[in-house]
Amino acid sequence: MTDSKFARALLAPQSVALVGASADIKKNTARPQRYLREHGYTGAIVPINNTAAECLGEKAYPSLDDAPDGIEHALIMVPGKYVLGVIEQCVRKKIPMASIYSDGFAETGDEGRKLQEQLVAVARAGGMRLTGPNCMGVINTHMPCALSINAVLDIDQLIKGRVGLVSQSGSVMGALLSRGQARGVGFSKLVSVGNECDLSVGEIVDILVDDADTDVILMFLETIRKPELLAQAALRAHQAGKPIVVYKLGRSEVARELAASHTGAMTGSDDSANAFFRRYGIMRVDTLEAMIEAPQFLLRAKPPKGRRIAVLTTTGGGAATVVDNMGRLGLDVVPPTDQVIENLAAKNIHIHKAALTDLTMAGTRKEIYSAVLDELLRSDHCDAILAVVGSSSQFHPQHAVEPIVEAMPTRKPLVTFLVPDAVRSLELLHEAGVAAFRTPESCADALAAYFNWQIPAALPKSDERTAAASALLGAATGKQLNEHAACNVFSALGVPIARTQIISTADEKIDLHFPVVAKILSPDVLHKTEAGGVELNIVDAAALRTAANRILERVASARPGARIEGILVQEMKRGRGEVILGYKRDPQVGPVVVLGVGGTLAEIYRDFCVRIAPVSVEEAHAMIEQVKGLALLRGYRGQPKGDLDALAHTVAAFSNLAVLSEHDIAEAEINPLIVAGVGEGVVAVDGLIVFS
Amino acid sequence: MTDSKFARALLAPQSVALVGASADIKKNTARPQRYLREHGYTGAIVPINNTAAECLGEKAYPSLDDAPDGIEHALIMVPGKYVLGVIEQCVRKKIPMASIYSDGFAETGDEGRKLQEQLVAVARAGGMRLTGPNCMGVINTHMPCALSINAVLDIDQLIKGRVGLVSQSGSVMGALLSRGQARGVGFSKLVSVGNECDLSVGEIVDILVDDADTDVILMFLETIRKPELLAQAALRAHQAGKPIVVYKLGRSEVARELAASHTGAMTGSDDSANAFFRRYGIMRVDTLEAMIEAPQFLLRAKPPKGRRIAVLTTTGGGAATVVDNMGRLGLDVVPPTDQVIENLAAKNIHIHKAALTDLTMAGTRKEIYSAVLDELLRSDHCDAILAVVGSSSQFHPQHAVEPIVEAMPTRKPLVTFLVPDAVRSLELLHEAGVAAFRTPESCADALAAYFNWQIPAALPKSDERTAAASALLGAATGKQLNEHAACNVFSALGVPIARTQIISTADEKIDLHFPVVAKILSPDVLHKTEAGGVELNIVDAAALRTAANRILERVASARPGARIEGILVQEMKRGRGEVILGYKRDPQVGPVVVLGVGGTLAEIYRDFCVRIAPVSVEEAHAMIEQVKGLALLRGYRGQPKGDLDALAHTVAAFSNLAVLSEHDIAEAEINPLIVAGVGEGVVAVDGLIVFS
Repeated sequence: MTDSKFARALLAPQSVALVGASADIKKNTARPQRYLREHGYTGAIVPINNTAAECLGEKAYPSLDDAPDGIEHALIMVPGKYVLGVIEQCVRKKIPMASIYSDGFAETGDEGRKLQEQLVAVARAGGMRLTGPNCMGVINTHMPCALSINAVLDIDQLIKGRVGLVSQSGSVMGALLSRGQARGVGFSKLVSVGNECDLSVGEIVDILVDDADTDVILMFLETIRKPELLAQAALRAHQAGKPIVVYKLGRSEVARELAASHTGAMTGSDDSANAFFRRYGIMRVDTLEAMIEAPQFLLRAKPPKGRRIAVLTTTGGGAATVVDNMGRLGLDVVPPTDQVIENLAAKNIHIHKAALTDLTMAGTRKEIYSAVLDELLRSDHCDAILAVVGSSSQFHPQHAVEPIVEAMPTRKPLVTFLVPDAVRSLELLHEAGVAAFRTPESCADALAAYFNWQIPAALPKSDERTAAASALLGAATGKQLNEHAACNVFSALGVPIARTQIISTADEKIDLHFPVVAKILSPDVLHKTEAGGVELNIVDAAALRTAANRILERVASARPGARIEGILVQEMKRGRGEVILGYKRDPQVGPVVVLGVGGTLAEIYRDFCVRIAPVSVEEAHAMIEQVKGLALLRGYRGQPKGDLDALAHTVAAFSNLAVLSEHDIAEAEINPLIVAGVGEGVVAVDGLIVFS
Repeated sequence: MTDSKFARALLAPQSVALVGASADIKKNTARPQRYLREHGYTGAIVPINNTAAECLGEKAYPSLDDAPDGIEHALIMVPGKYVLGVIEQCVRKKIPMASIYSDGFAETGDEGRKLQEQLVAVARAGGMRLTGPNCMGVINTHMPCALSINAVLDIDQLIKGRVGLVSQSGSVMGALLSRGQARGVGFSKLVSVGNECDLSVGEIVDILVDDADTDVILMFLETIRKPELLAQAALRAHQAGKPIVVYKLGRSEVARELAASHTGAMTGSDDSANAFFRRYGIMRVDTLEAMIEAPQFLLRAKPPKGRRIAVLTTTGGGAATVVDNMGRLGLDVVPPTDQVIENLAAKNIHIHKAALTDLTMAGTRKEIYSAVLDELLRSDHCDAILAVVGSSSQFHPQHAVEPIVEAMPTRKPLVTFLVPDAVRSLELLHEAGVAAFRTPESCADALAAYFNWQIPAALPKSDERTAAASALLGAATGKQLNEHAACNVFSALGVPIARTQIISTADEKIDLHFPVVAKILSPDVLHKTEAGGVELNIVDAAALRTAANRILERVASARPGARIEGILVQEMKRGRGEVILGYKRDPQVGPVVVLGVGGTLAEIYRDFCVRIAPVSVEEAHAMIEQVKGLALLRGYRGQPKGDLDALAHTVAAFSNLAVLSEHDIAEAEINPLIVAGVGEGVVAVDGLIVFS
């Protein structure tokens, strides 16, 4: 939890300094002063200007050193090279918080990054906190305190609302405020974080969790810089019943490259980002407008109990525009039950057992719409209702929009989509607290985000197994563990591994079931097969002796001087299929576990599933469901099924590598993990651990 | 081309009858009369009402038989069961056109379908044309003639425009009109086609091609009922320089089911629909609002010359919301060239060689924005420009919006996205003829539709090869051709087939290169392998004799009494990979050719490419590019390449099955087609043709 002194200085300062404020009202740097006053800020405003004695009617000071005491928040707008000096003044002046609008820092390259690090060092030493650089400030509509340079503040009036926003783009912060206001959606606090040199998105979210004016938290992200802090804040938000919605750039390769150049931050894969949001109960939307339309829906929402959505409409075609998008996003709709149909028939209202309950234009009258809506709200066959209204919503809200308004508050989630341009009806619905969507795409998007919302689950921490694995890792030397040592670590975590024995000479006896495989063990031979270091399908002891000799000869010839640690002999396993299990530290979100099918085609189809590690057995089952190629192990077209329970337990066990963070594992892999038939288990036959 | 008499009666009738008009102004059926007058219709209005002598001040008649002559268009609103009688009256009265609002026809099932067929029979015999049933009428803004029951007509004024619309949903027709008007986009003609019992979407598009008030044609579709007519109309539209944009439902399985139940029409796969639109130069958009935002962009557009898009922005984050969506849709952006950077540097404007030319908020001034935009418009390094404007667009259009307005008309396509809610700037841009998008999703969607726009190409018709294939098909009997006969047809079309010989006894000599394959030929043995009817890898004549005897014995035992036509002996071919080539009549769009990789995984990943048949060699190459699994034959990770030229020629040759429509081929398949290395060709080793 962030210190409340800084939270107050950030969002509700009683005295603000505007460093680099202009006395020329036409300049951008004159805006914050104007906006503060225009939007009703009643605290002290201290313009810092090294030439003017007065800015827009307010006494100005040549430097912070000359300014009065008691300043809680400095907005810094001077050119980048002067910022360090200003921070030093802030520290001298005991100003607890500065927002740095100035650019020319980490986003410009190494030199800027160093300068940025200096700012942070000075601030830390002086006990102050920073937002930015390259940020647009903060807006508190309730206090009010509009401390920003963003031109959106030229609007007449800030609507107070219960939606908080954290944005890595100052421009998009303004755009969302503007789009929200146009729809009657008000915000509580808006914070532009820029480069996040000190206060990161996670810490701002954490502050909003404690903010009494905020019920829903939005994030606009280009990257994730401090995943641990954001994860902690998200868990606290969940406990506080404050849903978090994110729009994150980087779904395409080109956007990930942009983010890297624009923010100067590392970017990981979008799959990893999705895994992060899923793990921490953060709803991700893909349409910009869902950011302002979804919050209304989520103000009272808890994670969904089921995914059955009933659709009531006055237009088949109009409803289908949403349902088609829902289908693409994996959401299905449910027809009414016989009971619902009977109950309505008793009122002389006749609906069909069809996916859409389409009253048609001709059939749309208030009493009918109300009766059907009421019946759907009461019936247990659906978990949520999508109400679509066609032509009548534009000029005749009494037919179908008013019945929706009158149904509020509802027992289950109710969202609406209006097919025509229906400004007044959108307003009516909004005022009644009904989420009303303007486009079929944002409506389906928000529904998908909601229905994919996972409760963040408690996860296993250290136990005897991880302790055993940790002991093995602690004894390890070098940059990586060979297949034998790595598999022993996996085994300690609970991963079944193939029975194995290491022999030093070709004559050594083994205590394994034939057939076996023999593989050279050498830190100097990375590609064993190419060096002639592998023999498969060895049927008996005599064949093993021959094979081992062949291996030693070939390796000696292919890699003269290679250190030979022995020959690994392993029982050969056959199963229904093979999977690859991977673990790595994603540069953006940290430890992830990856499950995929082996082989080139799976690679071409990018058919794998990523989750934040560790995962529970239940989550591992969800991962298995998500890998398309595993259809073969799920019994596709009558194929014999694989032991998916054993696979799920193994994925969960392997993912506990994430608990062993003290050993700095960069990546680990089991390839392949052989999956046998139902009840016959799985077995790891090759593996690797690489340290960072 | 549709007879101009009907076109006029449909869109610009001088006298209209309103059959079933109500005298009660509160009733839906009173609306058309009110709307006609309110929107300035100056022709004659003839209400038909069997009780009232007057409707809304107009003399009413008990039936069409009693009405004055000269009616050109009847809007029929009586209950479904009375419609047939009204059509008979229309015929007697020589009314050339009726729009049927009434429902209860094909959309309700078989009985309704029969009733609908009766309407058509009576109309055809009487020389009249119909739209509907279950349609909402037509709106002509230029005449004007607002002949519809849709409540959207309660708007104050219809904006005249140059966009024509054909819609299978009457409600969505109204919604698009309403959304368009809210954005200043006017329509020319809007036609709701309902069940298309007579006049189909294609025929209405055809009429709009000849309509002097229409420059762009929009279609809202749930299905495609008469693909040949729509294809012809699309080709004429292309010749006339009138782009067509379609929004079609059915991208998800659930929506295809809806369309089937809602329209009573068969639905094919969405891949087939995409293939149809691509083939006939129809741009498909996936966001509803792109339907009203794209036309402005397309009013002057020709199919694109290249796909290089330059992005100019005042906000990195805001532009990235579009670029991210573009990336997902396969569109990339290009950085400025050194020349552009130098030219601007000479004007003291410094931009970077980055994907986005981001002037930033601080750097955004009119003279700078204008200079950069001008330079991008003049440079040959890009084919189109996306201009994104951030905060300034809301209250300060002079900074970046005015420079865009002043750049019009431009030498290359220019589209804009405004990040905040910026109503006035959207209007300014619209008035200047600049396509301005309100959401990043619709902007990227319209750009993708535009850049995927294909010029409909002339395709091969009958030639000697198709004549030879036709002769073979003409001689065929039965419901399907066996592998030997089918491969001979494919060979006649130019598909290389494996060298083959049929032997009647095991002792017969062959003139083929070993190794060979031997397969039973029998119309009674469908699954040859299961019946023991196949032997592979036969190395010499002696082995062939043994194999043939084994086959005959096993088949005799597995399928006693099966008619044996011989044993097919075929040279065994190995290649770099195998593909499946299919042909079928799609229920929605007609003949399609399908290329896919063989095997279960490809099936699971739905990795295939569909095109309208026949395809050119060039288009076949595009198909090959689109099949992900063919990466293996494209040299993925250093794998040896396959002979993709030979494959493309073979796909094109095989697709000429579509030219042989007189033989009623329902489906055909080559499985597998073996693809050898570069220069080594392809060869079909198994095949089938099934007649309908």
